Amino acid sequence: MDLEEEVLARIERQRKLRPRFRDDRITMVHGAGGKATHTLVAGLFAPAFANDALAELGDAARLDIDGAALCLTTDSFVVKPLRFPGGSIGELAVNGTVNDLAVSGARPQAVTAAFIIEEGLDADVVRAEASAMAEAARRAGVAVVAGDTKVVERNKADGMYITTAGVGVRRGGAALGSASIRPGDKVLCSGHIGDHGTAIMLARGELELDADIVSDTASVWPQAEALIEVAGPALRVMRDPTRGGVATVLNELAGDAGAGMVLDENAVPIHSAVKGACEILGIDPMYVANEGVLLAVVAPEAAGDALDAMAATQGGAAAAVIGEVAEEPEGMVLVRTGFGGTRIMDMLIGDPLPRIC
Amino acid sequence: MDLEEEVLARIERQRKLRPRFRDDRITMVHGAGGKATHTLVAGLFAPAFANDALAELGDAARLDIDGAALCLTTDSFVVKPLRFPGGSIGELAVNGTVNDLAVSGARPQAVTAAFIIEEGLDADVVRAEASAMAEAARRAGVAVVAGDTKVVERNKADGMYITTAGVGVRRGGAALGSASIRPGDKVLCSGHIGDHGTAIMLARGELELDADIVSDTASVWPQAEALIEVAGPALRVMRDPTRGGVATVLNELAGDAGAGMVLDENAVPIHSAVKGACEILGIDPMYVANEGVLLAVVAPEAAGDALDAMAATQGGAAAAVIGEVAEEPEGMVLVRTGFGGTRIMDMLIGDPLPRIC
Repeated sequence: MDLEEEVLARIERQRKLRPRFRDDRITMVHGAGGKATHTLVAGLFAPAFANDALAELGDAARLDIDGAALCLTTDSFVVKPLRFPGGSIGELAVNGTVNDLAVSGARPQAVTAAFIIEEGLDADVVRAEASAMAEAARRAGVAVVAGDTKVVERNKADGMYITTAGVGVRRGGAALGSASIRPGDKVLCSGHIGDHGTAIMLARGELELDADIVSDTASVWPQAEALIEVAGPALRVMRDPTRGGVATVLNELAGDAGAGMVLDENAVPIHSAVKGACEILGIDPMYVANEGVLLAVVAPEAAGDALDAMAATQGGAAAAVIGEVAEEPEGMVLVRTGFGGTRIMDMLIGDPLPRIC
Repeated sequence: MDLEEEVLARIERQRKLRPRFRDDRITMVHGAGGKATHTLVAGLFAPAFANDALAELGDAARLDIDGAALCLTTDSFVVKPLRFPGGSIGELAVNGTVNDLAVSGARPQAVTAAFIIEEGLDADVVRAEASAMAEAARRAGVAVVAGDTKVVERNKADGMYITTAGVGVRRGGAALGSASIRPGDKVLCSGHIGDHGTAIMLARGELELDADIVSDTASVWPQAEALIEVAGPALRVMRDPTRGGVATVLNELAGDAGAGMVLDENAVPIHSAVKGACEILGIDPMYVANEGVLLAVVAPEAAGDALDAMAATQGGAAAAVIGEVAEEPEGMVLVRTGFGGTRIMDMLIGDPLPRIC
């Protein structure tokens, strides 16, 4: 097959694979970022809103408006508790949207912020989150340009929810997308995984564990920009592994690309405290949410330079090549374990960590 | 004073007038769109996020990005009940954001949609709102290009909340803004007022009244575009009187412009069923939310043509000149009543209608 035929065949395959949403009620699992979320989005929302920009189901929509090459994205944040070691809902709300733009190859420019506040919330909590958002925006180089506030009665929210939307300008002509992934490509990870989700768990007091684990919430635009500049068209795709973690993102990429992914467990950067906490909880850190980690697939000839460039950025010191793309098994992720074995790593099923972001 | 001095004086006056937010807790009144909301936004959020685009506190931020003249806006929707005569939360979520762009002089292009869903919600409710949003988007000529879904536990939301953000392209070089308002300008209203808020009240069963009142939820871009084309620079400013109603918007404009507003009560288009329901409830329809009404201030020499153009649009048949701008009383709104008297019409204080949008 030539390239065009191959792309058309992939689109056709995806169309056939479009899941149907058959559940009667919405449950917590539909918000967990795994298979159930994917089914809700791809099986209910995407067909309803059918259009080219949404059909990609990427982290942000690509739009050409008035001659500008933009990306547009949105996320709601319902994290519990509102403040946790290393961050807070406001910081998360800015960085989360900034990162959806960044991994779409767009320099984040402006964000909006909409607040749904539960009646009776201490005004100092609102004040603190406004400050946290302003500071996160300053660090990420974006402006908070528009907002809205709604108040609902007690027990109709949980303190406050924040929804941000963001607009960014696409850099260069990069045709970023999973369709460009090829066997032999390398999978790069910008930093330690599992910090955010584990910090939230500890902050909830669900573990009687006193570990020094802080959320990684931060903009990944520095890493994304470095990759765009150094790798150019050799940069295939970038993603930020939030809900569902690294495992879910790699499964989505493998499925979209119709390729296999082989992950080298020993190469994945992870703090020992996070590893220990996850062992105690019986959770695989590969499924734990990150809020300042970037995954990238890069052509093999550019992988070395890309890794060096990413490692030189602020927050990129732990960057590593963690795996590679294989011909098969198509649509699946294999993990080479530390003991020399191999296991299959599926998408997140179920909901180990509700309201993580 | 020349024009520049006048503008600077107004900015200085507004700066001094910036309210301080002194409340200890958030209450329902902070979400009602009146004085308390204004104090929260202008006294807490605006200083925290200080930047030029936000400082205007308009319906949408004006941004020049990658050579494009854009507007960006966001709104959360927490209306109760989710469905009501004439519309639903999904329709409202699209039209509300479309209208914030429209009254900012921007042709609505794309919207995002973020859902916060309460665990246990019937999936058919989600399906119905996705359809309602898609249909509203089609009618308004925009695409829903990106989305997000979060799920929270029972009693942490109320069915579902929807936050939309929107991007539009500014039309022409119109310097729309309250700073351009001059004594003698005419105030135009595109249609019947009070329908939406009254329909919501009736849908809640708070009135034992069987009246044929339906929400006016609709895009006002047809009216906005007609005004932009016909009035050009004679079009001073447009607003959509949602929470807080016509009274609150006119007070904001009078305050921003440092001018007075004189409203002719008899000229305001209002359905008799709405008038009757509001009388029974003891609420002034001037404070009731609208979701498909546009208010515009137009220079007197262009007011006639502007009215004709607006009346010729779909949904504009009831358009009327409802008042005019006066030298004084500065920052206040006077109403000429049907009985020949005059009374002061303040901003909305308190919260007669929570969760109206």
